[in-house]
Amino acid sequence: MKRRERRSRRRDTGSARGVPAVIPIINKLPFTEVLDDNGVQAIHQASMRLLKETGILVIDYPPALETFRKHGAKVDGEMVWIDEDTLMHFVQQAPATFSQLARNPTNTLTIGGRNTIFAPVYGPPFVADLDRGRREATLQDFHNFAKLTQMTPYLHAAGGTLVEPQDIPVAERHLDMLLAHITLTDKAFMGSVTSADNARDSVTMAQILFGADAIRQTPAVLGLINASSPLRFDDRMLGALEVYARAGQAAIITPFIIAGAMSPVTMAATLAQQNAEALFGICYAQMLNPGTPVIYGSFLANIDMRSGAPCFGTPENTLALYAGAQLARYYNLPYRSGGNFTASRIPDAQAGYESASTLWPTVQAGTNYVLHAAGWLEGGLISGYEKFVLDSEMLGIMARYVQGISLEEDDFAWDAFAEVGPGNHFLGSAHTMRHYETAFYQHQVFSMDNYEKWEEEGKEDSYKKANAVWKQMLKNYQAPPIDPAVAEALNAFVEHRRAEIRAGKPRSDWPG
Amino acid sequence: MKRRERRSRRRDTGSARGVPAVIPIINKLPFTEVLDDNGVQAIHQASMRLLKETGILVIDYPPALETFRKHGAKVDGEMVWIDEDTLMHFVQQAPATFSQLARNPTNTLTIGGRNTIFAPVYGPPFVADLDRGRREATLQDFHNFAKLTQMTPYLHAAGGTLVEPQDIPVAERHLDMLLAHITLTDKAFMGSVTSADNARDSVTMAQILFGADAIRQTPAVLGLINASSPLRFDDRMLGALEVYARAGQAAIITPFIIAGAMSPVTMAATLAQQNAEALFGICYAQMLNPGTPVIYGSFLANIDMRSGAPCFGTPENTLALYAGAQLARYYNLPYRSGGNFTASRIPDAQAGYESASTLWPTVQAGTNYVLHAAGWLEGGLISGYEKFVLDSEMLGIMARYVQGISLEEDDFAWDAFAEVGPGNHFLGSAHTMRHYETAFYQHQVFSMDNYEKWEEEGKEDSYKKANAVWKQMLKNYQAPPIDPAVAEALNAFVEHRRAEIRAGKPRSDWPG
Repeated sequence: MKRRERRSRRRDTGSARGVPAVIPIINKLPFTEVLDDNGVQAIHQASMRLLKETGILVIDYPPALETFRKHGAKVDGEMVWIDEDTLMHFVQQAPATFSQLARNPTNTLTIGGRNTIFAPVYGPPFVADLDRGRREATLQDFHNFAKLTQMTPYLHAAGGTLVEPQDIPVAERHLDMLLAHITLTDKAFMGSVTSADNARDSVTMAQILFGADAIRQTPAVLGLINASSPLRFDDRMLGALEVYARAGQAAIITPFIIAGAMSPVTMAATLAQQNAEALFGICYAQMLNPGTPVIYGSFLANIDMRSGAPCFGTPENTLALYAGAQLARYYNLPYRSGGNFTASRIPDAQAGYESASTLWPTVQAGTNYVLHAAGWLEGGLISGYEKFVLDSEMLGIMARYVQGISLEEDDFAWDAFAEVGPGNHFLGSAHTMRHYETAFYQHQVFSMDNYEKWEEEGKEDSYKKANAVWKQMLKNYQAPPIDPAVAEALNAFVEHRRAEIRAGKPRSDWPG
Repeated sequence: MKRRERRSRRRDTGSARGVPAVIPIINKLPFTEVLDDNGVQAIHQASMRLLKETGILVIDYPPALETFRKHGAKVDGEMVWIDEDTLMHFVQQAPATFSQLARNPTNTLTIGGRNTIFAPVYGPPFVADLDRGRREATLQDFHNFAKLTQMTPYLHAAGGTLVEPQDIPVAERHLDMLLAHITLTDKAFMGSVTSADNARDSVTMAQILFGADAIRQTPAVLGLINASSPLRFDDRMLGALEVYARAGQAAIITPFIIAGAMSPVTMAATLAQQNAEALFGICYAQMLNPGTPVIYGSFLANIDMRSGAPCFGTPENTLALYAGAQLARYYNLPYRSGGNFTASRIPDAQAGYESASTLWPTVQAGTNYVLHAAGWLEGGLISGYEKFVLDSEMLGIMARYVQGISLEEDDFAWDAFAEVGPGNHFLGSAHTMRHYETAFYQHQVFSMDNYEKWEEEGKEDSYKKANAVWKQMLKNYQAPPIDPAVAEALNAFVEHRRAEIRAGKPRSDWPG
């Protein structure tokens, strides 16, 4: 193990140079569960009762009311009630597993089954780093996080609203974000859900990139559709969902719940409500277009009863995360939940404890799609540069964990025991030499240095250490090549739509 | 929810005033497993082959060689080989569950089954805090950590060598540590294992405290017996184990393994070796005194192949921790492993991620006895004051997690759904008022404050926040009352032994 050899090996496989290949996660381990079959049944039954007796409020969107009425639900005003048989008839039409196209075909995703997809943080209006603290996010920040995502082998998807670029007008923001995802990364991306027209723009850009036939065959856009909990959906989200469903694109249907405020304080009721909302949205997508690929989503935190603030990494959240996975499996649907959550405002110890307390259950639950896997701070209000890098270390740890313990003949190291014998060390044994390169996960950011070395090198905490890492990653970033004609067509579309939006004109169809 | 009411409630149940009652952990959830039955069998078989063919080296302790020979093992020089039938005959005599006496009877422990016992960090020569950095530990530090342990409701046991008090001569250190445990806490404590005489002193002090008959009936001392891996035990540890076993006291038998150095680099071989070593020690205790209460121990980290440093919270360690629990269950023995491990030198984000990455598996594995549950830094070289407090927050989270999801009728909150209805919030509902006090885990150290409040209050990270907490806990500390006659007898014994040790005299029996 010469030092120079090790260094160069690290460079080849790590993120120090070039764009590392994405490392897929296929979980070989048994999933952790917290409910028995009766528990799953009890929550299912409670959801069915909520949907049939309490009902769902659909606001400002008559087309959805009409669709539900037409397919057998009871509708009165903006309220919809649906019975188990009708609901399950549609829910069962959703696929258990589906693919999402990526510009780099090796990054095309399989969503469902034993696959876990990690995607970066979604939605923060702020960014923060060690040098400049917290500030409003800009398009430049969006570009930076897109580049960091591209450079991180443990992030499988490009994500969506990495930050809200507040220097761009709200009405045209989605165009710049989509263009950034498509040109700065070659990973599968998420579409806009802020209006039906923005969803249409997302589909059009995917058509330009992949071709209309290709994305009709296999979805290229994934939309994050949130319920407006409790027991409510609005026109914006249902409108976007309708566009995606009719275009054969995919959607995550996620009740967004801070338990105790948007749901009862008890987890059983919260899970029943979450389940009712998710299935209602999934049912709607299937009514619009049977077979629409959907993900059963959960975003579930709980309120701090003292201050009213949302809490993350709590025992209640963990239990609900596992139970949600069990429910999604019960319906044979892919599951979205979790991430690297924290309430902390900087990557301090609390952020580490809370993030790991969410990420471990996320992976052990068998979650299929994980938004917010890197960068999340302050309950999702901040995309943190250093946090992104620290979270990514944990994603690397997970990629290794899910492989389980190998029990091949050579793994039992009989030659090493014979060679080394009792009382001696195994460092130089032939077995060690055969395996040391791949034996253990090698950290990229966390430091194993002892106190003396650490002191000598300036007593950097991991916040400081991560600061240097993201800067280096941005320096090393290389844009994935793109067909210039495609890039030109995308730019042309974006400028066309930007002009329409600025002129206040209605959206016109794009000939592409 | 008036603010004043909430505050006073917090004071009554939290650690702000008085000595809080210990909160037991009985895990209601299914345990997470990473091996199937064949995997457990494969590792068991490999261990049997190691014990039969490779053998265990027993250094400088002829009495153990004689004991093994007498009970059917093959002995040659200092090597011992034992076959499966002989070994398992003795291993099966160890109890699946046992009790350990505590001075406060409500703190008497049940070790085994679905119980998880948390005990503080064990063994560091250094302490560290935010104010003074790292320094050599003193008896004053030992006293401080004993007091913090007493004040933490989520620590069930007083532990052992909380720090190595380096201002006390090595030969008499154990006396001061035992006296501190017995007088400053009323929780079950660990005995000295640094020599057979020190183990005898531990037993004598337990006899003074509880009475000789009582501790013969139910063990009061727990000794941490480490193998000198690989495949080796030494006279110090076997001598102490012999004292405890003959006195009917309990022992944790722990192979101490940094995989890649003290074991092969592959986890299958490492687990087989760990299993062989643990069972060998357990077998020895049963040969000495059938029925001796023992805990199947695992301390398993892995080496950083780049630097040679030990790594914590790695995927390999996590997998091995789960597999170890499965093996202990296979033999129907209580399991010790895990803690709040980190390689970091201060409680930074890395420390948080790594600690939570060890603690979650520790609990989800169903670990019965958890040393190092609070305070561990720098791979166990430092007892950290702030780390102790931060880790304890995580222990509180675990105490809640293991309760699972309650599925009683009222947990489904039918009245709340009827009262609140779609689109409204649940904060003031009657159901919320009935449950809010106990609904969610309430944090003691982690802060849920938003950025603005946090900035206004001085931008304290959790390191800083924890600094204030441990100081307040020491201020609030109250010594548990002790019978003055017992305290006097303990002091008399300690001074008697101290005089013998200083005079270089052999240990004399204590008449008490």
